[in-house]
Amino acid sequence: MIMDDDPHNPIGVFDSGIGGLTVVRALIEQLPFEHIIYFGDTARVPYGVKSVETISRYATQITEFLLLQKVKALVVACNTMSAVAYQAIEDLSPAPVLGVVDAGARGAVAVTKNSRVGVIGTPATIHSNAYVKAIKKYDPDIEIFSRACPLFVPLVEEGWLDHQVTRITAQEYLKPVIAENIDTLVLGCTHYPLLKPVIQEILGDPIMLVDSAQAITEQTVELLGKHNLLNQQRRTPKYRFYVTDVPFMFKEVGERFLGRTLSNVTVIKW
Amino acid sequence: MIMDDDPHNPIGVFDSGIGGLTVVRALIEQLPFEHIIYFGDTARVPYGVKSVETISRYATQITEFLLLQKVKALVVACNTMSAVAYQAIEDLSPAPVLGVVDAGARGAVAVTKNSRVGVIGTPATIHSNAYVKAIKKYDPDIEIFSRACPLFVPLVEEGWLDHQVTRITAQEYLKPVIAENIDTLVLGCTHYPLLKPVIQEILGDPIMLVDSAQAITEQTVELLGKHNLLNQQRRTPKYRFYVTDVPFMFKEVGERFLGRTLSNVTVIKW
Repeated sequence: MIMDDDPHNPIGVFDSGIGGLTVVRALIEQLPFEHIIYFGDTARVPYGVKSVETISRYATQITEFLLLQKVKALVVACNTMSAVAYQAIEDLSPAPVLGVVDAGARGAVAVTKNSRVGVIGTPATIHSNAYVKAIKKYDPDIEIFSRACPLFVPLVEEGWLDHQVTRITAQEYLKPVIAENIDTLVLGCTHYPLLKPVIQEILGDPIMLVDSAQAITEQTVELLGKHNLLNQQRRTPKYRFYVTDVPFMFKEVGERFLGRTLSNVTVIKW
Repeated sequence: MIMDDDPHNPIGVFDSGIGGLTVVRALIEQLPFEHIIYFGDTARVPYGVKSVETISRYATQITEFLLLQKVKALVVACNTMSAVAYQAIEDLSPAPVLGVVDAGARGAVAVTKNSRVGVIGTPATIHSNAYVKAIKKYDPDIEIFSRACPLFVPLVEEGWLDHQVTRITAQEYLKPVIAENIDTLVLGCTHYPLLKPVIQEILGDPIMLVDSAQAITEQTVELLGKHNLLNQQRRTPKYRFYVTDVPFMFKEVGERFLGRTLSNVTVIKW
Protein backbone atom coordinates (compact mmCIF):
# COMPACT_ATOMS: atom_id res chain seq x y z
CA MET A 1 0.00 0.00 0.00
CA ILE A 2 1.27 3.47 -0.87
CA MET A 3 1.14 6.11 1.79
CA ASP A 4 -1.56 8.70 1.39
CA ASP A 5 0.32 11.83 2.27
CA ASP A 6 -2.13 14.40 0.99
CA PRO A 7 -2.42 17.06 3.76
CA HIS A 8 -6.16 17.35 2.99
CA ASN A 9 -6.72 13.77 4.10
CA PRO A 10 -8.11 13.12 7.56
CA ILE A 11 -6.36 12.04 10.72
CA GLY A 12 -7.52 8.60 11.85
CA VAL A 13 -8.05 8.17 15.59
CA PHE A 14 -9.10 4.89 17.16
CA ASP A 15 -9.91 3.35 20.48
CA SER A 16 -11.59 0.26 21.89
CA GLY A 17 -14.58 2.41 22.85
CA ILE A 18 -15.47 6.01 23.41
CA GLY A 19 -12.65 7.00 25.77
CA GLY A 20 -10.54 8.07 22.79
CA LEU A 21 -12.98 10.90 22.19
CA THR A 22 -10.97 12.80 24.81
CA VAL A 23 -8.08 12.66 22.31
CA VAL A 24 -10.37 13.87 19.49
CA ARG A 25 -11.46 16.74 21.71
CA ALA A 26 -7.87 17.79 22.33
CA LEU A 27 -7.03 17.42 18.61
CA ILE A 28 -10.00 19.60 17.58
CA GLU A 29 -8.88 22.28 20.02
CA GLN A 30 -5.26 22.28 18.89
CA LEU A 31 -5.77 21.52 15.18
CA PRO A 32 -9.06 23.21 14.24
CA PHE A 33 -8.68 22.73 10.47
CA GLU A 34 -7.99 19.01 10.37
CA HIS A 35 -10.54 16.43 9.21
CA ILE A 36 -10.83 13.58 11.71
CA ILE A 37 -12.17 10.05 11.41
CA TYR A 38 -12.77 8.28 14.68
CA PHE A 39 -13.24 4.55 15.13
CA GLY A 40 -14.53 3.18 18.45
CA ASP A 41 -14.97 -0.57 18.81
CA THR A 42 -17.95 -0.16 21.16
CA ALA A 43 -19.30 -3.67 20.50
CA ARG A 44 -16.12 -5.32 21.78
CA VAL A 45 -15.06 -2.86 24.46
CA PRO A 46 -13.41 -3.25 26.95
CA TYR A 47 -10.12 -4.52 25.54
CA GLY A 48 -8.31 -4.09 28.86
CA VAL A 49 -9.06 -7.57 30.12
CA LYS A 50 -8.65 -9.49 26.83
CA SER A 51 -5.64 -11.53 25.68
CA VAL A 52 -2.78 -10.00 23.67
CA GLU A 53 -3.66 -12.15 20.68
CA THR A 54 -7.27 -11.02 20.52
CA ILE A 55 -6.35 -7.36 21.02
CA SER A 56 -3.83 -7.56 18.16
CA ARG A 57 -6.37 -9.15 15.85
CA TYR A 58 -8.92 -6.41 16.55
CA ALA A 59 -6.29 -3.65 16.20
CA THR A 60 -5.28 -4.98 12.78
CA GLN A 61 -8.89 -5.02 11.61
CA ILE A 62 -9.46 -1.40 12.67
CA THR A 63 -6.16 -0.25 11.11
CA GLU A 64 -7.11 -1.80 7.77
CA PHE A 65 -10.51 -0.08 7.92
CA LEU A 66 -8.98 3.35 8.56
CA LEU A 67 -6.28 2.95 5.90
CA LEU A 68 -9.05 2.36 3.35
CA GLN A 69 -10.43 5.78 4.38
CA LYS A 70 -7.08 7.30 3.28
CA VAL A 71 -5.94 8.69 6.59
CA LYS A 72 -2.69 10.65 6.55
CA ALA A 73 -1.77 9.66 10.11
CA LEU A 74 -3.00 7.09 12.63
CA VAL A 75 -3.46 8.02 16.28
CA VAL A 76 -3.83 4.99 18.56
CA ALA A 77 -5.83 6.60 21.36
CA CYS A 78 -6.30 3.29 23.16
CA ASN A 79 -3.67 2.55 25.77
CA THR A 80 -4.33 -1.17 25.63
CA MET A 81 -3.80 -1.36 21.85
CA SER A 82 -0.79 0.96 22.01
CA ALA A 83 0.64 -1.24 24.75
CA VAL A 84 0.29 -4.63 23.11
CA ALA A 85 -0.33 -4.08 19.38
CA TYR A 86 1.63 -0.97 18.41
CA GLN A 87 4.17 -2.93 16.37
CA ALA A 88 1.47 -4.81 14.45
CA ILE A 89 -0.25 -1.52 13.59
CA GLU A 90 2.96 0.17 12.50
CA ASP A 91 4.01 -2.81 10.36
CA LEU A 92 0.70 -2.53 8.52
CA SER A 93 0.53 1.22 8.04
CA PRO A 94 2.29 3.30 5.39
CA ALA A 95 1.01 6.39 7.24
CA PRO A 96 2.84 7.49 10.40
CA VAL A 97 1.48 5.95 13.61
CA LEU A 98 1.35 7.63 17.00
CA GLY A 99 0.70 5.62 20.13
CA VAL A 100 -0.62 6.99 23.37
CA VAL A 101 1.82 4.90 25.43
CA ASP A 102 4.88 6.38 23.76
CA ALA A 103 3.39 9.86 24.17
CA GLY A 104 2.69 9.32 27.87
CA ALA A 105 6.16 7.89 28.41
CA ARG A 106 7.81 10.92 26.80
CA GLY A 107 5.62 13.19 28.91
CA ALA A 108 6.67 11.42 32.13
CA VAL A 109 10.36 11.59 31.24
CA ALA A 110 10.04 15.33 30.64
CA VAL A 111 8.23 15.96 33.93
CA THR A 112 9.92 13.79 36.58
CA LYS A 113 12.69 15.33 38.69
CA ASN A 114 13.40 12.47 41.12
CA SER A 115 13.23 9.76 38.41
CA ARG A 116 10.45 7.89 40.21
CA VAL A 117 7.32 7.54 38.08
CA GLY A 118 3.98 5.85 38.76
CA VAL A 119 1.80 4.42 35.98
CA ILE A 120 -1.84 3.39 36.29
CA GLY A 121 -3.93 1.67 33.60
CA THR A 122 -6.11 -1.33 32.71
CA PRO A 123 -4.85 -4.85 33.55
CA ALA A 124 -3.79 -5.50 29.92
CA THR A 125 -1.85 -2.23 29.68
CA ILE A 126 -0.07 -2.73 33.00
CA HIS A 127 0.70 -6.45 32.52
CA SER A 128 2.15 -5.72 29.09
CA ASN A 129 4.89 -3.65 30.74
CA ALA A 130 4.65 -1.31 27.75
CA TYR A 131 4.98 1.90 29.79
CA VAL A 132 8.02 0.55 31.62
CA LYS A 133 9.71 -0.33 28.33
CA ALA A 134 8.76 2.98 26.70
CA ILE A 135 9.98 5.10 29.63
CA LYS A 136 13.23 3.12 29.95
CA LYS A 137 13.86 3.62 26.22
CA TYR A 138 14.07 7.38 26.85
CA ASP A 139 15.75 7.18 30.25
CA PRO A 140 16.92 3.81 31.62
CA ASP A 141 17.56 5.30 35.08
CA ILE A 142 13.91 6.07 35.82
CA GLU A 143 12.22 3.70 38.26
CA ILE A 144 8.60 2.85 37.43
CA PHE A 145 5.87 1.69 39.82
CA SER A 146 2.76 0.35 38.08
CA ARG A 147 -0.74 -0.51 39.23
CA ALA A 148 -3.72 -1.92 37.34
CA CYS A 149 -6.99 -0.16 38.28
CA PRO A 150 -9.72 -2.36 36.74
CA LEU A 151 -12.62 -0.55 38.46
CA PHE A 152 -11.79 2.95 37.19
CA VAL A 153 -13.35 2.48 33.73
CA PRO A 154 -16.70 1.17 35.06
CA LEU A 155 -16.73 3.93 37.70
CA VAL A 156 -16.25 6.61 35.02
CA GLU A 157 -18.94 5.05 32.83
CA GLU A 158 -21.30 4.94 35.83
CA GLY A 159 -20.66 8.69 36.14
CA TRP A 160 -19.43 8.39 39.76
CA LEU A 161 -16.71 10.97 39.19
CA ASP A 162 -17.02 12.55 42.63
CA HIS A 163 -18.35 9.71 44.75
CA GLN A 164 -17.25 8.16 48.03
CA VAL A 165 -16.89 4.75 46.33
CA THR A 166 -14.56 6.20 43.72
CA ARG A 167 -12.51 7.95 46.40
CA ILE A 168 -12.04 4.76 48.49
CA THR A 169 -11.27 2.72 45.37
CA ALA A 170 -8.69 5.28 44.24
CA GLN A 171 -7.12 5.33 47.70
CA GLU A 172 -6.76 1.57 47.67
CA TYR A 173 -5.26 1.49 44.16
CA LEU A 174 -2.94 4.47 44.63
CA LYS A 175 -1.64 3.86 48.16
CA PRO A 176 1.16 1.42 47.21
CA VAL A 177 2.25 3.67 44.30
CA ILE A 178 2.35 6.83 46.45
CA ALA A 179 4.37 4.91 49.07
CA GLU A 180 7.17 4.60 46.49
CA ASN A 181 7.86 8.33 46.71
CA ILE A 182 6.97 9.07 43.07
CA ASP A 183 6.84 12.67 41.85
CA THR A 184 4.93 11.90 38.60
CA LEU A 185 1.91 9.73 37.80
CA VAL A 186 0.96 8.74 34.25
CA LEU A 187 -2.78 8.32 33.59
CA GLY A 188 -2.41 5.36 31.24
CA CYS A 189 -6.05 5.10 30.13
CA THR A 190 -8.21 7.59 28.22
CA HIS A 191 -11.01 7.27 30.79
CA TYR A 192 -8.85 8.40 33.68
CA PRO A 193 -8.64 12.15 32.90
CA LEU A 194 -12.26 12.36 34.12
CA LEU A 195 -11.02 11.18 37.52
CA LYS A 196 -8.26 13.82 37.71
CA PRO A 197 -9.82 15.79 40.59
CA VAL A 198 -10.21 12.69 42.82
CA ILE A 199 -6.79 11.31 41.90
CA GLN A 200 -5.03 14.66 42.44
CA GLU A 201 -6.76 15.03 45.82
CA ILE A 202 -5.43 11.64 46.97
CA LEU A 203 -1.94 12.19 45.56
CA GLY A 204 -1.49 15.66 47.04
CA ASP A 205 -0.02 18.57 45.15
CA PRO A 206 3.65 17.63 44.89
CA ILE A 207 2.88 14.73 42.51
CA MET A 208 2.40 15.77 38.86
CA LEU A 209 -0.17 14.07 36.62
CA VAL A 210 0.72 13.19 33.01
CA ASP A 211 -2.40 12.90 30.85
CA SER A 212 -1.47 10.65 27.93
CA ALA A 213 -4.37 12.00 25.83
CA GLN A 214 -2.94 15.49 26.04
CA ALA A 215 0.58 14.20 25.40
CA ILE A 216 -0.39 12.40 22.18
CA THR A 217 -2.15 15.50 20.86
CA GLU A 218 1.02 17.53 21.26
CA GLN A 219 2.99 14.82 19.46
CA THR A 220 0.47 14.77 16.61
CA VAL A 221 0.85 18.50 16.06
CA GLU A 222 4.64 18.07 16.01
CA LEU A 223 4.57 15.06 13.67
CA LEU A 224 2.20 16.62 11.09
CA GLY A 225 4.33 19.76 11.06
CA LYS A 226 7.54 17.81 10.52
CA HIS A 227 6.06 15.78 7.64
CA ASN A 228 4.39 18.82 6.01
CA LEU A 229 1.06 17.15 6.56
CA LEU A 230 -0.81 20.04 8.22
CA ASN A 231 -3.96 20.99 6.35
CA GLN A 232 -3.51 24.58 5.14
CA GLN A 233 -7.14 24.99 4.06
CA ARG A 234 -8.95 27.32 6.44
CA ARG A 235 -12.37 25.65 6.10
CA THR A 236 -14.60 23.97 8.67
CA PRO A 237 -13.36 20.38 8.72
CA LYS A 238 -15.44 17.18 8.70
CA TYR A 239 -15.64 14.84 11.66
CA ARG A 240 -16.86 11.30 11.12
CA PHE A 241 -17.41 8.73 13.85
CA TYR A 242 -17.55 4.97 13.28
CA VAL A 243 -18.63 2.62 16.05
CA THR A 244 -19.38 -1.11 16.12
CA ASP A 245 -22.36 -0.69 18.44
CA VAL A 246 -24.55 2.07 19.84
CA PRO A 247 -24.63 1.08 23.50
CA PHE A 248 -26.85 2.50 26.23
CA MET A 249 -26.10 6.12 27.04
CA PHE A 250 -23.74 6.31 24.04
CA LYS A 251 -24.64 9.85 23.08
CA GLU A 252 -24.68 11.10 26.65
CA VAL A 253 -21.37 9.52 27.66
CA GLY A 254 -19.77 10.23 24.27
CA GLU A 255 -20.61 13.92 24.45
CA ARG A 256 -19.24 14.07 28.00
CA PHE A 257 -15.90 12.85 26.60
CA LEU A 258 -15.97 14.88 23.38
CA GLY A 259 -17.20 18.11 24.96
CA ARG A 260 -19.54 18.79 22.02
CA THR A 261 -22.44 17.30 20.07
CA LEU A 262 -21.82 13.89 18.52
CA SER A 263 -23.18 13.72 14.98
CA ASN A 264 -22.19 11.92 11.78
CA VAL A 265 -22.06 8.55 13.56
CA THR A 266 -22.05 5.37 11.43
CA VAL A 267 -22.44 1.88 12.86
CA ILE A 268 -20.21 -0.83 11.37
CA LYS A 269 -21.33 -4.41 12.01
CA TRP A 270 -18.44 -6.73 12.73
CA MET B 1 -33.08 -28.61 11.26
CA ILE B 2 -34.34 -31.79 12.92
CA MET B 3 -34.22 -31.91 16.68
CA ASP B 4 -31.53 -34.06 18.19
CA ASP B 5 -33.43 -35.71 20.97
CA ASP B 6 -30.98 -38.47 21.81
CA PRO B 7 -30.71 -38.51 25.64
CA HIS B 8 -26.97 -39.24 25.30
CA ASN B 9 -26.40 -35.87 23.68
CA PRO B 10 -25.02 -33.03 25.77
CA ILE B 11 -26.80 -30.09 27.34
CA GLY B 12 -25.63 -26.79 25.81
CA VAL B 13 -25.14 -23.92 28.24
CA PHE B 14 -24.10 -20.45 27.17
CA ASP B 15 -23.29 -17.05 28.52
CA SER B 16 -21.62 -13.83 27.46
CA GLY B 17 -18.64 -14.73 29.64
CA ILE B 18 -17.76 -16.97 32.52
CA GLY B 19 -20.62 -16.08 34.90
CA GLY B 20 -22.70 -18.91 33.43
CA LEU B 21 -20.25 -21.38 34.96
CA THR B 22 -22.29 -20.97 38.17
CA VAL B 23 -25.16 -22.59 36.23
CA VAL B 24 -22.86 -25.39 35.00
CA ARG B 25 -21.78 -25.96 38.59
CA ALA B 26 -25.40 -26.31 39.75
CA LEU B 27 -26.20 -28.60 36.77
CA ILE B 28 -23.23 -30.88 37.53
CA GLU B 29 -24.37 -31.18 41.14
CA GLN B 30 -27.99 -31.97 40.28
CA LEU B 31 -27.46 -33.96 37.07
CA PRO B 32 -24.16 -35.80 37.56
CA PHE B 33 -24.51 -38.04 34.48
CA GLU B 34 -25.19 -35.39 31.85
CA HIS B 35 -22.63 -34.31 29.28
CA ILE B 36 -22.34 -30.52 29.15
CA ILE B 37 -20.98 -28.14 26.51
CA TYR B 38 -20.42 -24.60 27.69
CA PHE B 39 -19.92 -21.57 25.47
CA GLY B 40 -18.66 -18.30 26.97
CA ASP B 41 -18.20 -15.31 24.67
CA THR B 42 -15.25 -14.01 26.67
CA ALA B 43 -13.89 -11.89 23.80
CA ARG B 44 -17.06 -9.82 23.58
CA VAL B 45 -18.15 -9.79 27.23
CA PRO B 46 -19.83 -7.80 28.76
CA TYR B 47 -23.12 -7.86 26.83
CA GLY B 48 -24.96 -5.90 29.54
CA VAL B 49 -24.18 -2.50 28.08
CA LYS B 50 -24.58 -3.35 24.35
CA SER B 51 -27.58 -2.66 22.12
CA VAL B 52 -30.42 -5.16 21.68
CA GLU B 53 -29.53 -5.64 18.03
CA THR B 54 -25.90 -6.56 18.70
CA ILE B 55 -26.84 -8.89 21.57
CA SER B 56 -29.35 -10.70 19.33
CA ARG B 57 -26.77 -11.13 16.58
CA TYR B 58 -24.24 -12.62 18.97
CA ALA B 59 -26.87 -14.89 20.59
CA THR B 60 -27.85 -16.27 17.18
CA GLN B 61 -24.23 -17.02 16.33
CA ILE B 62 -23.69 -18.95 19.58
CA THR B 63 -26.97 -20.85 19.21
CA GLU B 64 -25.99 -22.01 15.72
CA PHE B 65 -22.60 -23.14 17.02
CA LEU B 66 -24.13 -25.23 19.83
CA LEU B 67 -26.81 -26.75 17.59
CA LEU B 68 -24.03 -28.05 15.35
CA GLN B 69 -22.68 -29.85 18.45
CA LYS B 70 -26.02 -31.71 18.65
CA VAL B 71 -27.18 -30.46 22.01
CA LYS B 72 -30.44 -31.93 23.31
CA ALA B 73 -31.38 -28.78 25.22
CA LEU B 74 -30.16 -25.17 25.32
CA VAL B 75 -29.73 -23.36 28.62
CA VAL B 76 -29.38 -19.59 28.20
CA ALA B 77 -27.41 -18.83 31.36
CA CYS B 78 -26.94 -15.19 30.43
CA ASN B 79 -29.59 -12.87 31.80
CA THR B 80 -28.90 -10.25 29.15
CA MET B 81 -29.40 -12.70 26.25
CA SER B 82 -32.44 -14.28 27.95
CA ALA B 83 -33.88 -10.83 28.43
CA VAL B 84 -33.49 -9.46 24.92
CA ALA B 85 -32.85 -12.43 22.57
CA TYR B 86 -34.83 -15.35 23.98
CA GLN B 87 -37.34 -15.35 21.13
CA ALA B 88 -34.63 -15.27 18.47
CA ILE B 89 -32.91 -18.25 20.10
CA GLU B 90 -36.11 -20.25 20.44
CA ASP B 91 -37.12 -19.53 16.83
CA LEU B 92 -33.81 -20.98 15.70
CA SER B 93 -33.63 -24.05 17.91
CA PRO B 94 -35.38 -27.39 17.38
CA ALA B 95 -34.13 -28.37 20.86
CA PRO B 96 -35.99 -27.02 23.91
CA VAL B 97 -34.63 -23.69 25.21
CA LEU B 98 -34.55 -22.59 28.84
CA GLY B 99 -33.90 -18.98 29.74
CA VAL B 100 -32.63 -17.77 33.05
CA VAL B 101 -35.07 -14.83 33.11
CA ASP B 102 -38.14 -17.04 32.88
CA ALA B 103 -36.68 -19.32 35.57
CA GLY B 104 -35.98 -16.39 37.91
CA ALA B 105 -39.46 -14.98 37.30
CA ARG B 106 -41.10 -18.30 38.19
CA GLY B 107 -38.94 -18.50 41.30
CA ALA B 108 -40.00 -15.02 42.42
CA VAL B 109 -43.68 -15.75 41.86
CA ALA B 110 -43.38 -18.89 44.00
CA VAL B 111 -41.58 -17.10 46.85
CA THR B 112 -43.29 -13.70 47.29
CA LYS B 113 -46.09 -13.39 49.84
CA ASN B 114 -46.80 -9.64 49.66
CA SER B 115 -46.59 -9.50 45.82
CA ARG B 116 -43.82 -6.90 45.89
CA VAL B 117 -40.66 -8.11 44.13
CA GLY B 118 -37.32 -6.40 43.49
CA VAL B 119 -35.12 -7.26 40.49
CA ILE B 120 -31.48 -6.29 40.03
CA GLY B 121 -29.36 -6.87 36.92
CA THR B 122 -27.18 -5.28 34.23
CA PRO B 123 -28.43 -2.14 32.42
CA ALA B 124 -29.47 -4.16 29.33
CA THR B 125 -31.42 -6.70 31.38
CA ILE B 126 -33.21 -4.07 33.43
CA HIS B 127 -33.97 -1.69 30.55
CA SER B 128 -35.40 -4.58 28.51
CA ASN B 129 -38.18 -4.96 31.13
CA ALA B 130 -37.92 -8.72 30.55
CA TYR B 131 -38.27 -9.66 34.23
CA VAL B 132 -41.31 -7.42 34.61
CA LYS B 133 -42.97 -9.04 31.58
CA ALA B 134 -42.03 -12.57 32.68
CA ILE B 135 -43.28 -12.12 36.26
CA LYS B 136 -46.51 -10.44 35.11
CA LYS B 137 -47.14 -13.36 32.73
CA TYR B 138 -47.35 -15.68 35.76
CA ASP B 139 -49.07 -13.20 38.09
CA PRO B 140 -50.22 -9.82 36.77
CA ASP B 141 -50.88 -8.55 40.32
CA ILE B 142 -47.25 -8.58 41.41
CA GLU B 143 -45.56 -5.20 41.60
CA ILE B 144 -41.94 -5.13 40.44
CA PHE B 145 -39.20 -2.66 41.41
CA SER B 146 -36.08 -2.86 39.24
CA ARG B 147 -32.59 -1.44 39.53
CA ALA B 148 -29.59 -1.70 37.20
CA CYS B 149 -26.33 -2.33 39.10
CA PRO B 150 -23.58 -1.78 36.49
CA LEU B 151 -20.70 -1.92 39.00
CA PHE B 152 -21.53 -5.35 40.47
CA VAL B 153 -19.95 -7.36 37.63
CA PRO B 154 -16.61 -5.48 37.70
CA LEU B 155 -16.59 -5.70 41.52
CA VAL B 156 -17.06 -9.49 41.40
CA GLU B 157 -14.36 -9.83 38.75
CA GLU B 158 -12.02 -7.70 40.87
CA GLY B 159 -12.67 -10.23 43.66
CA TRP B 160 -13.91 -7.54 46.09
CA LEU B 161 -16.64 -9.81 47.41
CA ASP B 162 -16.36 -8.61 51.01
CA HIS B 163 -15.03 -5.09 50.61
CA GLN B 164 -16.15 -1.72 51.95
CA VAL B 165 -16.48 -0.40 48.39
CA THR B 166 -18.81 -3.25 47.46
CA ARG B 167 -20.88 -2.68 50.61
CA ILE B 168 -21.33 1.06 49.94
CA THR B 169 -22.10 0.44 46.27
CA ALA B 170 -24.68 -2.22 47.17
CA GLN B 171 -26.26 0.11 49.73
CA GLU B 172 -26.62 2.83 47.13
CA TYR B 173 -28.09 0.49 44.50
CA LEU B 174 -30.44 -1.37 46.87
CA LYS B 175 -31.74 1.48 49.03
CA PRO B 176 -34.56 2.61 46.66
CA VAL B 177 -35.61 -1.01 46.06
CA ILE B 178 -35.74 -1.85 49.80
CA ALA B 179 -37.78 1.33 50.37
CA GLU B 180 -40.56 -0.21 48.26
CA ASN B 181 -41.26 -2.79 50.98
CA ILE B 182 -40.36 -5.80 48.82
CA ASP B 183 -40.22 -9.28 50.39
CA THR B 184 -38.30 -10.93 47.50
CA LEU B 185 -35.25 -9.88 45.46
CA VAL B 186 -34.28 -11.60 42.19
CA LEU B 187 -30.54 -11.73 41.45
CA GLY B 188 -30.88 -11.17 37.70
CA CYS B 189 -27.24 -11.75 36.75
CA THR B 190 -25.07 -14.86 37.06
CA HIS B 191 -22.30 -12.86 38.73
CA TYR B 192 -24.48 -11.72 41.60
CA PRO B 193 -24.69 -14.99 43.59
CA LEU B 194 -21.08 -14.31 44.64
CA LEU B 195 -22.33 -11.13 46.32
CA LYS B 196 -25.10 -12.93 48.24
CA PRO B 197 -23.57 -12.38 51.71
CA VAL B 198 -23.17 -8.61 51.22
CA ILE B 199 -26.59 -8.24 49.60
CA GLN B 200 -28.34 -10.31 52.27
CA GLU B 201 -26.64 -8.27 54.99
CA ILE B 202 -27.97 -5.01 53.51
CA LEU B 203 -31.45 -6.39 52.83
CA GLY B 204 -31.93 -7.88 56.28
CA ASP B 205 -33.39 -11.33 56.89
CA PRO B 206 -37.06 -10.81 56.01
CA ILE B 207 -36.26 -10.33 52.30
CA MET B 208 -35.77 -13.58 50.36
CA LEU B 209 -33.18 -13.87 47.57
CA VAL B 210 -34.05 -15.70 44.34
CA ASP B 211 -30.93 -16.96 42.58
CA SER B 212 -31.83 -17.29 38.90
CA ALA B 213 -28.92 -19.71 38.31
CA GLN B 214 -30.36 -22.13 40.83
CA ALA B 215 -33.87 -21.64 39.46
CA ILE B 216 -32.86 -22.52 35.89
CA THR B 217 -31.11 -25.68 37.05
CA GLU B 218 -34.29 -26.91 38.71
CA GLN B 219 -36.24 -26.18 35.53
CA THR B 220 -33.70 -28.06 33.44
CA VAL B 221 -34.08 -31.18 35.59
CA GLU B 222 -37.86 -30.91 35.22
CA LEU B 223 -37.77 -30.32 31.46
CA LEU B 224 -35.40 -33.19 30.67
CA GLY B 225 -37.53 -35.54 32.77
CA LYS B 226 -40.71 -34.46 31.01
CA HIS B 227 -39.22 -34.96 27.54
CA ASN B 228 -37.56 -38.29 28.43
CA LEU B 229 -34.22 -36.68 27.72
CA LEU B 230 -32.37 -37.63 30.93
CA ASN B 231 -29.22 -39.60 30.24
CA GLN B 232 -29.67 -43.04 31.79
CA GLN B 233 -26.04 -44.08 31.31
CA ARG B 234 -24.24 -44.11 34.65
CA ARG B 235 -20.82 -43.16 33.30
CA THR B 236 -18.60 -40.18 34.04
CA PRO B 237 -19.82 -37.51 31.63
CA LYS B 238 -17.74 -35.19 29.45
CA TYR B 239 -17.53 -31.46 30.01
CA ARG B 240 -16.31 -29.24 27.19
CA PHE B 241 -15.77 -25.49 27.42
CA TYR B 242 -15.61 -23.14 24.44
CA VAL B 243 -14.55 -19.53 24.86
CA THR B 244 -13.79 -16.76 22.36
CA ASP B 245 -10.82 -15.46 24.36
CA VAL B 246 -8.64 -16.51 27.26
CA PRO B 247 -8.58 -13.29 29.27
CA PHE B 248 -6.39 -12.43 32.24
CA MET B 249 -7.16 -14.52 35.31
CA PHE B 250 -9.49 -16.72 33.22
CA LYS B 251 -8.59 -19.97 34.98
CA GLU B 252 -8.61 -18.44 38.44
CA VAL B 253 -11.91 -16.58 38.05
CA GLY B 254 -13.49 -19.43 36.07
CA GLU B 255 -12.65 -22.00 38.72
CA ARG B 256 -14.05 -19.70 41.41
CA PHE B 257 -17.38 -19.75 39.53
CA LEU B 258 -17.30 -23.43 38.58
CA GLY B 259 -16.10 -24.72 41.94
CA ARG B 260 -13.74 -27.23 40.27
CA THR B 261 -10.81 -27.46 37.85
CA LEU B 262 -11.39 -26.03 34.38
CA SER B 263 -10.01 -28.34 31.71
CA ASN B 264 -10.96 -29.21 28.13
CA VAL B 265 -11.09 -25.53 27.14
CA THR B 266 -11.10 -24.67 23.40
CA VAL B 267 -10.70 -21.15 22.05
CA ILE B 268 -12.93 -20.21 19.08
CA LYS B 269 -11.80 -17.17 17.11
CA TRP B 270 -14.69 -14.99 16.02
